[in-house]
Parts: sequence; structure tokens; C-alpha cells
Amino acid sequence: MVAINCDMGESFSIYHCGDDEGLMPFVTVANVACGFHASDPRVMTRTVKLAKRHGVKVGAHPSLPDREGFGRREMKMDREELTAAVVYQIGALSGFLRAEGMELNHVKVHGSLYGMSSRDPEVAQAIADAADVFGAPLMGMVGTVHEQVWGDRGAGFIAEYYADLDYRDDGSLIITREHQAFDPVRSAERALRAVTEGKATSENGKELTVRADSVCVHSDTPNAVELAQAVNTALKPHLS
Amino acid sequence: MVAINCDMGESFSIYHCGDDEGLMPFVTVANVACGFHASDPRVMTRTVKLAKRHGVKVGAHPSLPDREGFGRREMKMDREELTAAVVYQIGALSGFLRAEGMELNHVKVHGSLYGMSSRDPEVAQAIADAADVFGAPLMGMVGTVHEQVWGDRGAGFIAEYYADLDYRDDGSLIITREHQAFDPVRSAERALRAVTEGKATSENGKELTVRADSVCVHSDTPNAVELAQAVNTALKPHLS
Amino acid sequence: MVAINCDMGESFSIYHCGDDEGLMPFVTVANVACGFHASDPRVMTRTVKLAKRHGVKVGAHPSLPDREGFGRREMKMDREELTAAVVYQIGALSGFLRAEGMELNHVKVHGSLYGMSSRDPEVAQAIADAADVFGAPLMGMVGTVHEQVWGDRGAGFIAEYYADLDYRDDGSLIITREHQAFDPVRSAERALRAVTEGKATSENGKELTVRADSVCVHSDTPNAVELAQAVNTALKPHLS
Amino acid sequence: MVAINCDMGESFSIYHCGDDEGLMPFVTVANVACGFHASDPRVMTRTVKLAKRHGVKVGAHPSLPDREGFGRREMKMDREELTAAVVYQIGALSGFLRAEGMELNHVKVHGSLYGMSSRDPEVAQAIADAADVFGAPLMGMVGTVHEQVWGDRGAGFIAEYYADLDYRDDGSLIITREHQAFDPVRSAERALRAVTEGKATSENGKELTVRADSVCVHSDTPNAVELAQAVNTALKPHLS
Repeated sequence: MVAINCDMGESFSIYHCGDDEGLMPFVTVANVACGFHASDPRVMTRTVKLAKRHGVKVGAHPSLPDREGFGRREMKMDREELTAAVVYQIGALSGFLRAEGMELNHVKVHGSLYGMSSRDPEVAQAIADAADVFGAPLMGMVGTVHEQVWGDRGAGFIAEYYADLDYRDDGSLIITREHQAFDPVRSAERALRAVTEGKATSENGKELTVRADSVCVHSDTPNAVELAQAVNTALKPHLS
Repeated sequence: MVAINCDMGESFSIYHCGDDEGLMPFVTVANVACGFHASDPRVMTRTVKLAKRHGVKVGAHPSLPDREGFGRREMKMDREELTAAVVYQIGALSGFLRAEGMELNHVKVHGSLYGMSSRDPEVAQAIADAADVFGAPLMGMVGTVHEQVWGDRGAGFIAEYYADLDYRDDGSLIITREHQAFDPVRSAERALRAVTEGKATSENGKELTVRADSVCVHSDTPNAVELAQAVNTALKPHLS
Repeated sequence: MVAINCDMGESFSIYHCGDDEGLMPFVTVANVACGFHASDPRVMTRTVKLAKRHGVKVGAHPSLPDREGFGRREMKMDREELTAAVVYQIGALSGFLRAEGMELNHVKVHGSLYGMSSRDPEVAQAIADAADVFGAPLMGMVGTVHEQVWGDRGAGFIAEYYADLDYRDDGSLIITREHQAFDPVRSAERALRAVTEGKATSENGKELTVRADSVCVHSDTPNAVELAQAVNTALKPHLS
Repeated sequence: MVAINCDMGESFSIYHCGDDEGLMPFVTVANVACGFHASDPRVMTRTVKLAKRHGVKVGAHPSLPDREGFGRREMKMDREELTAAVVYQIGALSGFLRAEGMELNHVKVHGSLYGMSSRDPEVAQAIADAADVFGAPLMGMVGTVHEQVWGDRGAGFIAEYYADLDYRDDGSLIITREHQAFDPVRSAERALRAVTEGKATSENGKELTVRADSVCVHSDTPNAVELAQAVNTALKPHLS
């Protein structure tokens, strides 16, 4: 069984980001921004309600405190303040879930915090300390420091596979600042193969072993809705 | 039975505000700032832990989103965004309480939001919508719009009496920008009389009928600790 | 002689707002956001450079400190702190102008601050105190408190006429939260008539006397570029 | 000739930081915070006015955008956005200087930005790009990357010597999170020797060659005023 996850609720103030309404029918799990890199309390209210209407589970998508940089600028925070920042954000989201009678499904950290946790055990531990408060599993990538740290701790690790990004020969992800359109048919095939065979092909044609507890689609890919729909259709029999 | 409440955790970044360590032994309930007018995630962590060590109950102390104005500048927010802002803050605090195995005791809104809710039913309703998500009673002043609105709704109303501020002949409070030192003996006598007789004397000597479910002491009065200690000693037999 | 002005540089972080590139060829004056309701230092750099490339003059577009509410929520600030907030913003913009060897053309305050200054002389005076530091004239609407206050003070008053919004019979503007598309032909005719005859027609067909030192077009009207182009073509012989 | 400089105007909102009133008589140059790590527009207004009353020159003290971390958390910013952030802050301060008829004296960057610029040429260049807009020299430490970068560029480099911190044998500074009280007599002797002989003694008694165009005293040392007074008295004949 597999989930389809997507970062949602990244609008802010008068600014729109991502077609959450269009995407929600095709995902099973939403990673909802918590106000530190994007979103604000009203956007959070509306995003959680939207997820509920579509029967989509909600996880927290906390970030470094950096709205101007959209959470994409690395910041050095000590372990205590990082844990506190993540508890704050998950707690805030939990309030909106409580308002809708929903449970927190998981935690997936955003942007630079995701990257930092994939390399730095101290950062990964700080995040796990926060997720543990809520008994929530953490979503991340295999072959990283955070897989090791989070897998060793109690709440569990959810491995995600990216349907709309290419992988290098060493299994690492090629992240571009602006996401390019990605062929929906190819995305769907890749996702299905990752889920059923645990295999992927790198940018240079190398065979990779992967694990896909959850398949990630991005909301800011130009053809995001079309792509999510194709992945959803392909994975239909396997969706949890 | 009566509680002694105090606004706590209003430090921020490198800045200190209020002698929380000194005051905590003499209060029974702490209204903990939630990051919108004061505090930050690290200060919240530490304040909740400090309250726990002293067996002090914790309520949320949410504010308008105005750190620069310390929540003392009125802002016009519509009902949806105000409720969302308050849910966000109570939720965030609840995360830190959960980390310590504590329950949310109540909600007391801060500064201008407190004043606005005492006059404007729409504001009072917006706040009650947020508190209801957490099943938490709201603390406020008798003779106000918020007493009426919050008393009529489910979660309950906690009437507070100010031990360290004077009242006008019409029962309203004389709030000064900077709190003046207040005689501890007089504070203690006033608090005891309010609790046991339901009576107070206005600035001009008029007899007032008051209600004191909770006696408030301020952390930014120059002699705050001495004053809290005197009130605590006087109310000792009546403390819940 | 008349100018065509437009609010510009209201993007923020990863968020886009308004087609500044498309509009710049058709305006003569840009009111550039200063980071309090929208924009950030990078957006300001780029907006000023863009204006320079098109030979467009730059004015400051300062706001209440309210990024989450896009400067559209009224806030009570005292006169000293309001003047300081506006000096801060104009000063910041002036740094980017200095980098490009440009002069500050004027000041037009944003959103709720514009509305508050049209009604409250204290607010209007606070803003004028700030503009006077830079010797910059203030842009506003006739028939308002700010016209009176700013006209009486040294630096001068620039009366603007809105090409893409309707007026009431009393000469006041009908402001909608989301701007509707507006017929470019009608906009152009209205603008030309306001400039050449000093006349406008209200929503109910009443004849109004107006003054148009500068014609305002909005960047967030759905057909903003087409409309700006039509107004520009109509006013071509009269542009300063 | 030598200056005595001190970071000033680091209060924020209701929070006080440093005894600026007490220190101002004993310094000749104030590095004034610009709102990114500390201060706000009202504090900036008042700090510039206070400096003017005492005939103290004013420099800008810009920071990384991190009020919660007081500018002490490293952040990765690209060169364009870092230059823009510094131009924004210097520009904002320049507005307050213009209001008082004062000139910008220099730029001294704050906290982590100071540290980053002492090691990373890209950061040092980004800051110099901003200072050059205002034709302002940059203040820093000898033996660092920023000395090299800023010294090679047009506007000039001001070498500062710390009167109230110890140096390591390699000439680097021992920075503590909370500044300890420092013997005023020793401070004054050290300052005088640095100015007149260009010599200092490291923590282990090693003789160091130093350069002191400006002697820095901190406002958050417990005995800051006493210390500044002692340094001022000792350097009196050498003050510019």
C-alpha cells in the first residue's frame, strides 16, 4: 500500500501558491505548511477544511523560521530552539486539525530543514524530539542521515519517492529551484514501478533500488494537477 | 476558592520581561504568551517547564499579531482571520503542554485584544470560537461585552479581579502604560476583600460589587514579586 | 500635463503579484512597495532597476506594518511611531534609488493607511512629517482630509484620478477587495475627460468635478496591462 | 586619532537593551541597529536624536534578517539578496539621519554577518556593494577576510580594537554569548596601549600587533558605562 503526498497550503496573505483545490482530489496525504515559510492562520484553516472535504489525511510541514526565503535558506539553530520551533508549528497545525476532528498523520519538514536533516544527525534528532511529542512518524528519503536517525527512534519513518524529479546515479535527488514540467505518463510509470518493484532508473540510465511508502508530487510543477491525476490513476489499486 | 493568575513568558529573543522565576512560586495559574505579541518557541518551552516545576496551571495568552507593538495597538481583523489567529496560538502552546504532559487550563487574551473583546461582540465571538476548539474557559472582566458573550457560551467564564490596579467609580479598570508600584499590603487586603466579600473600593472611595474567580497580578509592576507574595499569603486559605 | 501611476513591486519571497514587466512601458510613475505590506529587499532592487530601464519615475508606497494583511487592516499607531514607520520605509527605498542614481519622485501611502489618512488629520500629519524629511510631495484624493492637510504643508499635493474604479455620487471611490476587469476603452475615455475637462460621471450618471494630476491604474485588475496601454495611448499628448 | 564606538539602539518594542543614555556621553561613534536583528522605527528615531544631542557620529549596524535570533544565527543568503538586505537597512537609517541633518559615518555589520564576512569573501563583497551605494567606509577586524576585501575597495576600512574582550594568541577575538564584566582600569590601559603602541597582550600573555582606528565597547557588558567612561578618559587626548 502506498500514499500520494503533496505540500499544500503554501499560499500567504493575498498571494496564491499551488492549485490546492485542483490537486486535493488526487492525493491521499497533504503536508500542510505551518506559517514559518508560507501560510498564515487563515490559509491553514482553509487548507485543513479542504483536505477534510476530500478525505485527505493531514501531516505537518514545518520549516525554518524564514518567510522571506520560503524556508530555503539554511540557518544555524541550536538543538533546543530547533525542537521548540518545530513543536510550535506542529502544535499550531494540530489546533486546526482539532477544530475539524482530525488526527495528525505525520510530519514532513520543509525545504532547507529537510536537506539539513538529511545530512546532520543533530538536526535530525532535534526534529524527531518534536515529532515524538505528537507521536507522529517522519517522512523522508532513504539513504540519508534522517532515515537512519528517524528509523532508529520510536515513531517510525515513511520513505517517500519523488514522481516528478530525476535521481542521480547515487540515488540522490536533483532538486531545481523552479520545478520543470514533467511528462505525466512517465511520472505515472516511474511511480508504479517504484511501488511495485522497488526500482527506479537514474538520469544516466542506472538501475536504482528505491522504497516508496509514499509518492510525492509537487504543487508548483507547471502541470501539477495533470501529473497528480496520472500518478493517482496508475497507483489506484495500491493506494492506502 | 480562588486562583492567582499572572501573564508569563513575555521575554523574547535576548530580551527579558518579567521575573517569571521569582513570581512562579506565588501564583497558581500562568497566562503564557504564544509568540504573537511576545515570546518565541524557546521561551515558551522554558516557561511551560518552569510552570510545571512549580505545580502552576497554564493557560494560553494569545494576542493580535503585533510583536512590535506588544499587542497593544488595535487592529481590525475579520472574524474568520481572528479566530484562526487565536486557534494558531492556542494550538502552538498546546504542543508545549503536551510535551510536558500538561493540560490547557484556560484562555486569557492579551492587551488590545482583551480590550476589544470587552467592547465588541464580534471580537468576543471570534475568540470564543477559538477557545471552544480546545474546550477551554475564557478569563475576563465582569461588566463587559466579553463577560456576556463568553458566559452565554459553553466553555465557561472566569472572572478576574486586579489586585494591583485601581478601579473607576463605574467599575472599569484604570490601565496605565507603565504599571506603577502598588503597596503590597493594600493589594493583599483588596484581594482578600474581593474574594471573601465580593467588594472593592473605587479610586474615589465608592463601594463596588466585584467577582474574583481569579486574582490577577502583573509581572511588570516594579515590585511584582513582593506584591504577588503578599497576595498569595493573604489568599492562602482560599487558593484552589 | 498628467502622469500615469501604478503600485508596483508588490511581489514577495517566491510569490508574484502584478505584471510589473508588462505594465512598466505604459506608466510614467511607479509607486514602489517598501517591505511593510509587500515586497522584500530583492524585489525592491529589481523593481527600481526595472523602472529605471523604462524611464519611469519612482515614488515610495509605504504601508502599515502588516504583511499578513497586505496593509489592508487598520491599526492604531500613535503619531510618533507612524511617522517613524514611514520614514523607515521611504529611507529604505531611497537606498535603492541612490544605487541607481535616481531621485525620489513622491510618496503615496498604501491601503488602510491611505484610507485612514483621508479621514484622520492626525494620521495625515504623521505621514506629512515623514514625507517632509525627503522633501517629497504626497499623492492622494481630492475631497479628503489628506488633501487638506497635505495641501496646506510645504511639499505639495498630487491629486490622482482612478481610471479603473467607479465613483459614487458624492465623489468618493468604490473600492472592491478584488479588482474587477474594467473596459479599457471606457477607462481611456474617462481618463482623458478627467484630464482635459476635469469632469467625471458617477456610477449613477451624476456629473462630478475632478482633478487629475496623475491617473492611477491598478496592477491587480485582471486586464491590467491592456487597460494601462489604452489609458497611455489616450493620454499620450498630455503625459508629463 | 581614534574613535570610541558602541552598538546602540538595540531596544525593541517594550524591551530595553543597553544603557544608551548612560553610554552616549563616553563614545564618539554609535553603530545604530536598523531593525533586522533589533530596534524598530521608533527606537531608531530616538537613538539618532540621542546621538545628535551628544555630538556622536552615527554609523549603520545592519544584520541578517533574524530578530528572533538577534542576528546571531548564520543564514545562507545569495549575494544579490544580501546586498539588497544591507542597502535596505542602511537606507532606512539614512532616513532618520536626514531628518536630523546628519551624515552617515560608516557601516559596521552585526553579529553573525560580521563573523561570516570575516571568513567568506562572497559575503564581504556583498556587504561592500551595499556600503558603496552610500560611500561609507566599513568597520571590522584586522587579520580577516573582510579586512582584505574592504581594504581593497574604494570606501575604506576602519580597524576596530575591542577594549572589553580578550584575544587569543592568534589575534582572534574570544566572543562570549553573554559579555562578562571587565575591569575598567584594565580596559582603559589596553585601549591606550593599542592606540599609542599598536600592541596588545593575548589571553596567554603573548604579544600581539594590533591596529585601533576605533575602540569598541559593548553596551551589554554588566559594567558598560563605567568601562566606557574609563576608556574615554584614557583616550581623551587621542579622540578624533
